[in-house]
Amino acid sequence: MEEKAGKLLSQINLPSDLKQFKEEDLVEVCKELRQYIIDMVSVNGGHFASSLGVVELTVALHYVMNTPYDRLVWDVGHQAYGHKILTGRRDVFHTNRIYKGISGFPKRSESEYDTFGVGHSSTSISAALGMAVASHLKGETNRQHVAIIGDGSMTAGMAFEALNHGGIAKSNLLVILNDNCMSIDPNVGALKDYLTNITTSKTYNKFRDDVSAVLSKISELGPNAHQIVKTIEKTIKGSLLNKSNFFEALNFRYFGPIDGHDINHLTKVLKDLRDIPGPKLLHCVTVKGKGYTLAEKDQTKWHSPGLFNKITGEIKKSSQSIPQGPKYQDVFGNTIVELAEKNEKILGITPAMPSGCSLNIMMKAMPDRAFDVGIAEQHAVTFSAGLAAEGYVPFCNIYSSFMQRAYDQVIHDVALQKLPVIFCLDRAGVAGADGATHHGAYDLAYFRCIPNMIVSAPMNEEELRNLMYTAQLKDHGGPFSIRYPRGNGVMPDWKRPFKEIEIGKGRTVSEGEDVAILSIGTIGNEVSKALTVLNEEGYHPAHYDLRFVKPLDEALLHQVFSKFKNVITVEDGCLQGGAGSAVLEFMIDNNYQAAIKRLGIPDAIIEHGEQAELWAECGYDAKAIEMAVKEMSVAKITKGLVG
Amino acid sequence: MEEKAGKLLSQINLPSDLKQFKEEDLVEVCKELRQYIIDMVSVNGGHFASSLGVVELTVALHYVMNTPYDRLVWDVGHQAYGHKILTGRRDVFHTNRIYKGISGFPKRSESEYDTFGVGHSSTSISAALGMAVASHLKGETNRQHVAIIGDGSMTAGMAFEALNHGGIAKSNLLVILNDNCMSIDPNVGALKDYLTNITTSKTYNKFRDDVSAVLSKISELGPNAHQIVKTIEKTIKGSLLNKSNFFEALNFRYFGPIDGHDINHLTKVLKDLRDIPGPKLLHCVTVKGKGYTLAEKDQTKWHSPGLFNKITGEIKKSSQSIPQGPKYQDVFGNTIVELAEKNEKILGITPAMPSGCSLNIMMKAMPDRAFDVGIAEQHAVTFSAGLAAEGYVPFCNIYSSFMQRAYDQVIHDVALQKLPVIFCLDRAGVAGADGATHHGAYDLAYFRCIPNMIVSAPMNEEELRNLMYTAQLKDHGGPFSIRYPRGNGVMPDWKRPFKEIEIGKGRTVSEGEDVAILSIGTIGNEVSKALTVLNEEGYHPAHYDLRFVKPLDEALLHQVFSKFKNVITVEDGCLQGGAGSAVLEFMIDNNYQAAIKRLGIPDAIIEHGEQAELWAECGYDAKAIEMAVKEMSVAKITKGLVG
Repeated sequence: MEEKAGKLLSQINLPSDLKQFKEEDLVEVCKELRQYIIDMVSVNGGHFASSLGVVELTVALHYVMNTPYDRLVWDVGHQAYGHKILTGRRDVFHTNRIYKGISGFPKRSESEYDTFGVGHSSTSISAALGMAVASHLKGETNRQHVAIIGDGSMTAGMAFEALNHGGIAKSNLLVILNDNCMSIDPNVGALKDYLTNITTSKTYNKFRDDVSAVLSKISELGPNAHQIVKTIEKTIKGSLLNKSNFFEALNFRYFGPIDGHDINHLTKVLKDLRDIPGPKLLHCVTVKGKGYTLAEKDQTKWHSPGLFNKITGEIKKSSQSIPQGPKYQDVFGNTIVELAEKNEKILGITPAMPSGCSLNIMMKAMPDRAFDVGIAEQHAVTFSAGLAAEGYVPFCNIYSSFMQRAYDQVIHDVALQKLPVIFCLDRAGVAGADGATHHGAYDLAYFRCIPNMIVSAPMNEEELRNLMYTAQLKDHGGPFSIRYPRGNGVMPDWKRPFKEIEIGKGRTVSEGEDVAILSIGTIGNEVSKALTVLNEEGYHPAHYDLRFVKPLDEALLHQVFSKFKNVITVEDGCLQGGAGSAVLEFMIDNNYQAAIKRLGIPDAIIEHGEQAELWAECGYDAKAIEMAVKEMSVAKITKGLVG
Repeated sequence: MEEKAGKLLSQINLPSDLKQFKEEDLVEVCKELRQYIIDMVSVNGGHFASSLGVVELTVALHYVMNTPYDRLVWDVGHQAYGHKILTGRRDVFHTNRIYKGISGFPKRSESEYDTFGVGHSSTSISAALGMAVASHLKGETNRQHVAIIGDGSMTAGMAFEALNHGGIAKSNLLVILNDNCMSIDPNVGALKDYLTNITTSKTYNKFRDDVSAVLSKISELGPNAHQIVKTIEKTIKGSLLNKSNFFEALNFRYFGPIDGHDINHLTKVLKDLRDIPGPKLLHCVTVKGKGYTLAEKDQTKWHSPGLFNKITGEIKKSSQSIPQGPKYQDVFGNTIVELAEKNEKILGITPAMPSGCSLNIMMKAMPDRAFDVGIAEQHAVTFSAGLAAEGYVPFCNIYSSFMQRAYDQVIHDVALQKLPVIFCLDRAGVAGADGATHHGAYDLAYFRCIPNMIVSAPMNEEELRNLMYTAQLKDHGGPFSIRYPRGNGVMPDWKRPFKEIEIGKGRTVSEGEDVAILSIGTIGNEVSKALTVLNEEGYHPAHYDLRFVKPLDEALLHQVFSKFKNVITVEDGCLQGGAGSAVLEFMIDNNYQAAIKRLGIPDAIIEHGEQAELWAECGYDAKAIEMAVKEMSVAKITKGLVG
């Protein structure tokens, strides 16, 4: 590696090495750590601005706390690069997020310093509380348990649930609120405004100071006034002013706000907090992207910028194969605006992913009709249900793996009531470098068991547009879900006129013989690739794009099972209960007999890597499909069925 | 019906009738409404104490608000009996919760006054906010949108998510906090303590009053003092004291606390609030069970007491068929204590259902080792993961339909990390009178697609005990789930010595021929019933209890598919992707051919009724199983396969 760690950082393999430095050296350690992150991410990619923002916090925590005995739980975890570099992974950090390399998030199996795996937001307080209660039960009174959570993550309900429990639990829990006013996009919501108030006016502490000052002035007015001062003091003391802070209302002792970039003050405060038992919250104000000027200025862009020239700040275009079409995200973002211009009932909803899912296009074009509700998937779904109950047509866009957070709301508030909410599931299928926590592996299985739910997936950009168009044309008697993956499509000329798609109607991509391939979603393009090779080699399987996993195209399936005795299903989703399983159910329920090979995500945790690498690993890329067709054809030949 | 509505209540068919009364008559209306609820529930059963607690609130809301144009959203909805009686359903109220009768919860398809269907908690603010934003978009500035939510429901994360969004949304939203310190069991958590502080000391308002009084005294001290008063006033005004209330921190205007049983004050306050735009919260203090002394005294017992003698308060024993065994809940509750006495690592966790799932037995026996974390399924799961990460063995008991709330946490925090959390899914299968929102229909489908997850279901009490025993014996490399239904089992002598069960091992209930029946869970007892009849009539199907849907007993299935060409699967769960579907996958993956008839919950919303009624409706009670066996046997005879 060309990039080398600085003089001090290169001596730090573990936190025990860090502890050897004097406090006055920590400023330099922070500087070197920050530079190392810039060096590494600029050439290897990954999350960027979040880790820069917590450099001082990271160094201070490992300097003061006795890790790994003391437990650090990083919320979400994309800010934990500094933590990884300080805990034995400096020299493998260049493999971050790369296939077979280290994970972009803390991970229990990777290091004993990673006390709890993360990826999704807002789990840290619950996990740290569990650990703290465990220590309490074991009688380990000196063990520290720290959850480091951003103000964005604090908006999710489960963080509140954990605070509500943590406030009464017998535990030694420190929550560090890393307040930078950001999620990936600017943070939203009433709590953010409240925190900004505290931070900017410092009124909470200032009020106490001011009152004291005023009271001492009153005392000077004489003995009568002295009595009055006592009364006021008593009143204030006995009042809820002691609980006037949001977190103190939940029985957390509140400290701060403090400057999260003042390393020496941070270490002092953390040392003090070690000795205070019970639930407590330290409010640290930080700047996302701190130390890299461009990142400080445009934090959303620099959340995860890809590769860049660290000197000029120029972000490099992807060096991967030239994309053939636009990002599916942008197809979504532009299409919803196009549809909303004609259908005034259309609204857009995202839980804190406006730039990720491209709803920011609509937020800019129609600010009154597009809503970022914060990291709050549960609320996003039921809020959408409320809008639909009043006649609106909400497009609720949630990543497939995050939709797991709102599963009950989809069933209970939308499907049971047959409300016409349109769910767009972004990041469906394997998600790539974000890895196991972010793969959208399960949605076909967990959605198709819900009554009244339409489950669809487009094979390309035009199909995505037409499914979106179809979904909003009328009330289909319940929710309408459309899943599509992260990344680029296959149609440079994607902006074609809208066509209605018949619900539950698949399509024939190419007729053929011997073997039928049934695919769902964009992975169908891998089938097309396989077919190009296969056709050249004399194999001519048929290819059908199911389009809908629910309702299934029964007419098409009757045709298929009447004609074919060998069927392959292909999906970028889990095999257990997924699309292939739906095809099996149809076949058996209708008394057909055929050999079926189901290709998809196996019953295992799939780690990170590029999508194509993972498709290959899971056995459903073009090559694997090609092999499956050949095997089935051989089986037929063996059985003497092929002329 | 013997029970008649009182003189005033009998004149009220709709809220428009209620509005004809003078305000001074409302006390009498409340009295009659309360009596009517007592009369009806005592003879028909249902939720009880909650509706008694909101009689005044219900009358006041329909008296003041212009329902249904103004939107009332009842959280959970078991407190909405008064609402139902006042909105056209007085004379059908005796069919409440009965098969084909009205629902025990508000339901959109039942009445235009039921603006949003409920059953699960904490959805009301999100839904009402959606409606309020819809009205704002339509320019309907005078429309009211009211969420009525208990302090228990307020502990769930999604309520907080909705407050966080509601505080900044342009909307006309009124949240009424019905504070009775209860969920079904006593409410827990820091927020509860905070609300109790406000309510009992009234310090929030009192502080403002006291400060004013003191300030006016200071003024009397002369011109100098006058200046100081100004300073203090300015300090207080500019301070966070204005946000010193938890809800005001979230930008809701806070009103209260007020007495929720003072009907005349309530109507006055509600009238005033109609004219205040923006997000606001009214804190009403009520007594659950108000007006029925026994219910006020033991609110958990009288939450849903069953039938009772309204004069003596004697609760009648169920008149249904005499149970053959104990409640599965009590088997769980006693067994966990028995196991925990031997294994000191065992802990128990419930999200607000200690009496419902019988964890209260452990909470009493080992108060330090059993946790009620509030209505907080998400937190319950990740808190359990944190405990497991530190070597504990948590039994996390969550109803099947409520587990939908924690689906992401099960995947992301437990399964991905292979943490040995034991999930006990109570109320699996059709739940009975609570209906569509409460059926545990989907868990087999949504759990079996999760890697590292063991999915099991006992057929009887002994099996439940042995599965619990087996689950805690060692780390099985991931979560271990055990599902069982509401209600009574089949083994009077259930407390038998523990036996380890081999993971993924089913069992033969009875050998047989022609047809193999594969059942999972307690519905296997319906198979046994069917077999008694079938055997008498000369049919001898085999019966296998799968025990595990994941991992499947492959050896057993190889045997079955080698021997049988006709297979019936039976599950008290959804057919799409469920246990039967897992069997299909096995069969096809292993190149077997057989006719399979899958019995289970069809792809439809199943309403309320007794479990046996619903099994019959769905086609998997003993009778339906009997028919299925006969049909398959006939099919075989037709094909000439039977001697």
